[in-house]
Amino acid sequence: PTPTGKYPYDPMAVLRDFDYGQVIQENGRLLRQFEVTARSTPVKLNAAITFMTWSLNGRVPAPTLRAKAGERLRIIFHNEDATSHSLHFHGTHPASMDGVKPVRRGKTFIYEFDAEPYGVHPYHCHIAPVTHHIGKGLYGLLIIDPPVERPPADELVLVMGGYDLKKQDKNDIYAFNGIPNFYRDRPIEIYQHQLVRLYLLNMIEFDAAVTFHIHANMFQVYPTGRTLTPSEETDVITMGPAERHILEFTYHYPGMYMFHPHQDQIAERGCMGHFKVLPV
Amino acid sequence: PTPTGKYPYDPMAVLRDFDYGQVIQENGRLLRQFEVTARSTPVKLNAAITFMTWSLNGRVPAPTLRAKAGERLRIIFHNEDATSHSLHFHGTHPASMDGVKPVRRGKTFIYEFDAEPYGVHPYHCHIAPVTHHIGKGLYGLLIIDPPVERPPADELVLVMGGYDLKKQDKNDIYAFNGIPNFYRDRPIEIYQHQLVRLYLLNMIEFDAAVTFHIHANMFQVYPTGRTLTPSEETDVITMGPAERHILEFTYHYPGMYMFHPHQDQIAERGCMGHFKVLPV
Amino acid sequence: PTPTGKYPYDPMAVLRDFDYGQVIQENGRLLRQFEVTARSTPVKLNAAITFMTWSLNGRVPAPTLRAKAGERLRIIFHNEDATSHSLHFHGTHPASMDGVKPVRRGKTFIYEFDAEPYGVHPYHCHIAPVTHHIGKGLYGLLIIDPPVERPPADELVLVMGGYDLKKQDKNDIYAFNGIPNFYRDRPIEIYQHQLVRLYLLNMIEFDAAVTFHIHANMFQVYPTGRTLTPSEETDVITMGPAERHILEFTYHYPGMYMFHPHQDQIAERGCMGHFKVLPV
Ligand SMILES: [Cu+2]
Ligand SMILES: [Cu+2]
Ligand SMILES: [Cu+2]
Ligand SMILES: [Cu+2]
Ligand SMILES: [Cu+2]
Ligand SMILES: [Cu+2]
Ligand code: NA
Ligand code: NA
Ligand code: NA
Ligand code: NA
Ligand code: NA
Ligand code: NA
Ligand SMILES: [Zn+2]
Ligand SMILES: [Zn+2]
Ligand SMILES: [Zn+2]
Ligand SMILES: [Zn+2]
Ligand SMILES: [Zn+2]
Ligand SMILES: [Zn+2]
Ligand SMILES: [Zn+2]
Ligand SMILES: [Zn+2]
Ligand SMILES: [Zn+2]
Repeated sequence: PTPTGKYPYDPMAVLRDFDYGQVIQENGRLLRQFEVTARSTPVKLNAAITFMTWSLNGRVPAPTLRAKAGERLRIIFHNEDATSHSLHFHGTHPASMDGVKPVRRGKTFIYEFDAEPYGVHPYHCHIAPVTHHIGKGLYGLLIIDPPVERPPADELVLVMGGYDLKKQDKNDIYAFNGIPNFYRDRPIEIYQHQLVRLYLLNMIEFDAAVTFHIHANMFQVYPTGRTLTPSEETDVITMGPAERHILEFTYHYPGMYMFHPHQDQIAERGCMGHFKVLPV
Repeated sequence: PTPTGKYPYDPMAVLRDFDYGQVIQENGRLLRQFEVTARSTPVKLNAAITFMTWSLNGRVPAPTLRAKAGERLRIIFHNEDATSHSLHFHGTHPASMDGVKPVRRGKTFIYEFDAEPYGVHPYHCHIAPVTHHIGKGLYGLLIIDPPVERPPADELVLVMGGYDLKKQDKNDIYAFNGIPNFYRDRPIEIYQHQLVRLYLLNMIEFDAAVTFHIHANMFQVYPTGRTLTPSEETDVITMGPAERHILEFTYHYPGMYMFHPHQDQIAERGCMGHFKVLPV
Repeated sequence: PTPTGKYPYDPMAVLRDFDYGQVIQENGRLLRQFEVTARSTPVKLNAAITFMTWSLNGRVPAPTLRAKAGERLRIIFHNEDATSHSLHFHGTHPASMDGVKPVRRGKTFIYEFDAEPYGVHPYHCHIAPVTHHIGKGLYGLLIIDPPVERPPADELVLVMGGYDLKKQDKNDIYAFNGIPNFYRDRPIEIYQHQLVRLYLLNMIEFDAAVTFHIHANMFQVYPTGRTLTPSEETDVITMGPAERHILEFTYHYPGMYMFHPHQDQIAERGCMGHFKVLPV
């Protein structure tokens, strides 16, 4: 990822940045290999506050890894940070690949498992206290595409996170994709009449649950990305920590539209964005 | 609405009070016109506390506006309060009608858009801090009926709200339809074997989510009112802020039954009611 | 239940301990009769803290009562505690059997109603303050099996609870089935390729909602146990207080796997367990 301006990564690029890894044929089977590195990375949260995150490849959230159901996955994890970390993936895999064992500083661990089932799976550090290791930024998404691809769409990734600046088990600032109010001030451009497919993850610790709301529109919900047809249409959905869904929607009128948790105190502390719907 | 006794509005009337507006033929199309006025209205929450609400037409919640899918809606909004307010509707509409722009004191703004899609849509003031403008009472429901009407039922509206009396971003008192414990002390009369259709909205700020529970019975859930068949049967449902559903149930035994969030500390602080099931 | 070691009950037995009561033919109809007794029971929560629970039959959670849809149920409730209690059942029943009236100390009350509908129904004391009576441990599950039995499975019961030790309307410690970290330190043994059917209940007060997550696997959700086919597959589910579901899953790789709420601060305060998947 290319840092833009004052940020170590470009949140606008993160939105549509899918890491497909490197495809290798091994023992007559397709293996998809990813390489990620944990480091401490300072992130300017606002004019006054710079927060030392624990990042993967310099990003919060970590890279959006993307594969297809049934492939073999290999994630080469370098811990170049000063403390132990791990990568725990949601989805199915053997106990030995569950990522609850510390990878000590300076070490590399290789996670390898089958990409199954299709869906949207968070991954995150699982070193205790997990609240702290997640709160510092070590989380991201693994998207496993279904055997038959979903219809074409403008695909976006949004991860909701919180920052416990005062270490009081309480978030002081929130963000979509790491940077508070980034998309509030720099709207996400999408197109009128264009299907948008949003991969949405809640990784906010300490708050029991959050909602996600888009203005002036409804979305279709594919829970956990585990279905090919939607289960529900609404404009507010409640998500506990680590819940994630695919939401699909299309704006039919151009203009500027907010999106935010409808816990408005969270929205007002940084978890706020705009879609700018461009006319076609 | 006619004030009864010490309240500026009658919560018993609010339950079944649907505002169908005024129907106008305009350019060969049916247009349904509503007129609402924001004011500061003192509401006696209990023997000790009178709270200055921001009300619409003197009510908390605001009038339950009701229309049919596909109609044109016009909401004439007079702000006769001393501060800016707005009406932001959930559902679909153009950006210009999204109600995030302040309507200054003394001004009138006319919202106009198509009634779509059918379902249950909250509306509320969207002036910052939204937690405060919602917490003061500026919220209500817009019900858009589906093209083919739902079966006959005794239809009720319940809106859960909270009051942050000490301005500590924490609710001290809660209520169904604005008045703490009103329906606890004056049970809602319904009839044995009669289908009840409940339009239920959670507009409680600061609490991450609430539940809604009815005693001694199960209900069918129509999420966001966006379906004609239920998705689930239960007796406890979790709802984040701005979530709303249609719940249907029938009591088969007469008698007195509680309903309340199963966050019991919220129930015990005013969000408590009774159904009195009358024999037939 | 036989106390084991330092606990008044054996949490390992509680997992698979279903109380089918005593079957009686009465007036040509099958009646299933249960007998439970409320008492104050000290429970050692950890090396430092012993908490005086309000238990049923010496257990927290109370016995898992189990019946079949359509049977007649009789629950003989002895209150041998020093304060009033009651048994309020979720599910359907007449107002007179709703369990909101106090059963004074030393008294017996007989609840009798039809077992309907099939599903998973919490029961708990409903004496005010309910937060306190639930927080002290007076809750359990009534499972009503459907007319056609569910497929064979290894059936488990897990109830999530919280302890407000300092009476500050805030939980200090959490537990599955009453004893903090019990299953973390003594993994629940299940078998590879064996279908597990988990009856899961959230009875945590004060926290708006919790999630339940299993590692390295997905589960099928039967909401409120009210369906015979699953509504959703995921690995994290959000549940408000008194929400309960059947979750089904099968581990295909042997080894050790965590389960816990993904509100990690709750997991780290005692609501943590392991499945030990034994090879076949
Ligand atoms: Cu870590
Ligand atoms: Cu909105
Ligand atoms: Cu306002
Ligand atoms: Cu109940
Ligand atoms: Cu009690
Ligand atoms: Cu996990
Ligand atoms: Na896998
Ligand atoms: Na929902
Ligand atoms: Na509209
Ligand atoms: Na539910
Ligand atoms: Na019953
Ligand atoms: Na879910
Ligand atoms: Zn269009
Ligand atoms: Zn996780
Ligand atoms: Zn908004
Ligand atoms: Zn009936
Ligand atoms: Zn809203
Ligand atoms: Zn109750
Ligand atoms: Zn298997
Ligand atoms: Zn209950
Ligand atoms: Zn975990």
